[in-house]
Amino acid sequence: MASKSRAVVMRHRKLVIDEIDVPSPGPGQVLVETLASGICGSDLHFLQHGSRAGGEHELSPFDPARDLVMGHEYSARIVEVGAGVENVAAGDVVVSMPVMATGDGMAAIGYSHDYPGAYSERMLLFAPLCTKVPDGLPPEHAALTEPLAVGRHTVNLAKISKVEGAIVLGCGPIGLAIISALSLDGVEPIIAADFSRARRELAGAMGAYEVIEPDKEAAIDAWGRVAGARPPVIFEAVGVPGMLDQAMRMAPRSGRIMVAGACMEPDTIEPIIGVTKELSLQFALGYTPDEFSGTLQSIADGKIPVAKLVTAQVGLDEVPQAFEMLARPDEHVKIIVRPNGK
Amino acid sequence: MASKSRAVVMRHRKLVIDEIDVPSPGPGQVLVETLASGICGSDLHFLQHGSRAGGEHELSPFDPARDLVMGHEYSARIVEVGAGVENVAAGDVVVSMPVMATGDGMAAIGYSHDYPGAYSERMLLFAPLCTKVPDGLPPEHAALTEPLAVGRHTVNLAKISKVEGAIVLGCGPIGLAIISALSLDGVEPIIAADFSRARRELAGAMGAYEVIEPDKEAAIDAWGRVAGARPPVIFEAVGVPGMLDQAMRMAPRSGRIMVAGACMEPDTIEPIIGVTKELSLQFALGYTPDEFSGTLQSIADGKIPVAKLVTAQVGLDEVPQAFEMLARPDEHVKIIVRPNGK
Repeated sequence: MASKSRAVVMRHRKLVIDEIDVPSPGPGQVLVETLASGICGSDLHFLQHGSRAGGEHELSPFDPARDLVMGHEYSARIVEVGAGVENVAAGDVVVSMPVMATGDGMAAIGYSHDYPGAYSERMLLFAPLCTKVPDGLPPEHAALTEPLAVGRHTVNLAKISKVEGAIVLGCGPIGLAIISALSLDGVEPIIAADFSRARRELAGAMGAYEVIEPDKEAAIDAWGRVAGARPPVIFEAVGVPGMLDQAMRMAPRSGRIMVAGACMEPDTIEPIIGVTKELSLQFALGYTPDEFSGTLQSIADGKIPVAKLVTAQVGLDEVPQAFEMLARPDEHVKIIVRPNGK
Repeated sequence: MASKSRAVVMRHRKLVIDEIDVPSPGPGQVLVETLASGICGSDLHFLQHGSRAGGEHELSPFDPARDLVMGHEYSARIVEVGAGVENVAAGDVVVSMPVMATGDGMAAIGYSHDYPGAYSERMLLFAPLCTKVPDGLPPEHAALTEPLAVGRHTVNLAKISKVEGAIVLGCGPIGLAIISALSLDGVEPIIAADFSRARRELAGAMGAYEVIEPDKEAAIDAWGRVAGARPPVIFEAVGVPGMLDQAMRMAPRSGRIMVAGACMEPDTIEPIIGVTKELSLQFALGYTPDEFSGTLQSIADGKIPVAKLVTAQVGLDEVPQAFEMLARPDEHVKIIVRPNGK
């Protein structure tokens, strides 16, 4: 086993290819060979702004002077287990929630200076959170468990009734994950909206009944055309300023808005619109262990057309360019990094 | 019966005392002698801005060139009934939801050019919405049914569990109405906050366990001191920009925020705080007929210390000054207008 691991290191707000030390797995930890690692929109934001989410609420504080290795959507093969690890063994292919339990609390794998993420040949995972990947499932598909679990969680939190359907604003990875979870639950109709043609096609493949171009027709008009007076639950999966206002304006009386788009900037709403229509806004984050393992199972069972989501696979050296490619959303949805080759 | 009715008329954004025609009650309508009419904060806003709530969502469009008589929190004695009215009779003292059903839909009594409100000696009500006031209940207390029903509705919508308590931000009429409904439901603790000493005292009388000065101690700190790790439902009853942000910052993980304050201006929030803590915001408006009549019953049963809420009673001539007095919230809570004297 190499004592050094090649990795994409975030250093002074730039991505550089370098070698990091391979750690030894402590009690409850496993050392893994990273098989596949999805690039997440949050990683692009983190590179640009050095913060992922609401500052003080982050699991792992960020120090711009220190190196950091991102990558939190991964599948991996275990190469060495630490003391007390019994649920997995060397050779197992696993996925896990990107969290490490430490003596000091929890750390976010892929956003922590102490626990490098999956843009690296080797990394440590927390064994109790590891779930074995069913035989035969390609590693790049298993690595989609994390983003798809976010959609599953958002849909579960919405508790959609039989009379409701869904409008999904934005068909990036999170919007597509929401559509796939809605579709698996039999929610219909699902009306989705995105400016990108490629993403609209994927939304259809994931189970959207109709996918509109926001500048051609308003999502709520398409909803009325398809579903009449039935109430939609509106999923906001764009995450840029102005989307909450859009969702609140289009919502019907007593409308429910699920906020999955992680808008990092202050945003302006008109509270009186919320009051007059008695709206509710439910923000969503993350997933539970059950939602995570259930999503892996849905992928393994072939219930989600995951192959379509992977628009490119790259080696570690190509990650900086891949970050730039993802800034053009019409061309890519999910780029998978293969740190140890395919 | 007079063919003219003295009224406080809103004309070119000013309040003037004038006479309006006394209408004849049409089918389903009753003509009433107004006994008591509370001045609502929404009336102050309407006078200033000419709009009450989200513009296009208002029941009755406003034309600044036309006269309008406000007043939607009232008790009244029926003087004449229209065709087909059977549930009430001349002489009955009633309250009602301030809504008139017309051939063209619904109109908002007190915010409609066609249906003058209770700042007038006489007005029309819609008989099916009238509820008789129990004998002996002073008209100025019966007139509090409307604002107290708003608090009842907001609390019902919150569906507070046994493990939750409440923080109420703002102890104006709506905050106090929320506190009284929470208290009637046995929710505890209730921690309230207001800058006004007089309103803090009233919040205590309505059932708040502790009422803090926001510049002395943060409401969430008082909550922690009193309730420890139990989760509060946070009721926003101030309705000025910045309050939603305050509520979102103080809310615990999975926190629930009920928005009863009708902020009329755009407001800025940080969506990522909502995402990171997985918050929900539920906006609230109005009340159901059952909530309205139930509130009247609670008042009649002496379950709400309503006498303390009435800080002044005035005649029609004094209404313009009363509007100015209410701009100083430390001195008054509810000023009751007695259009026909006490």
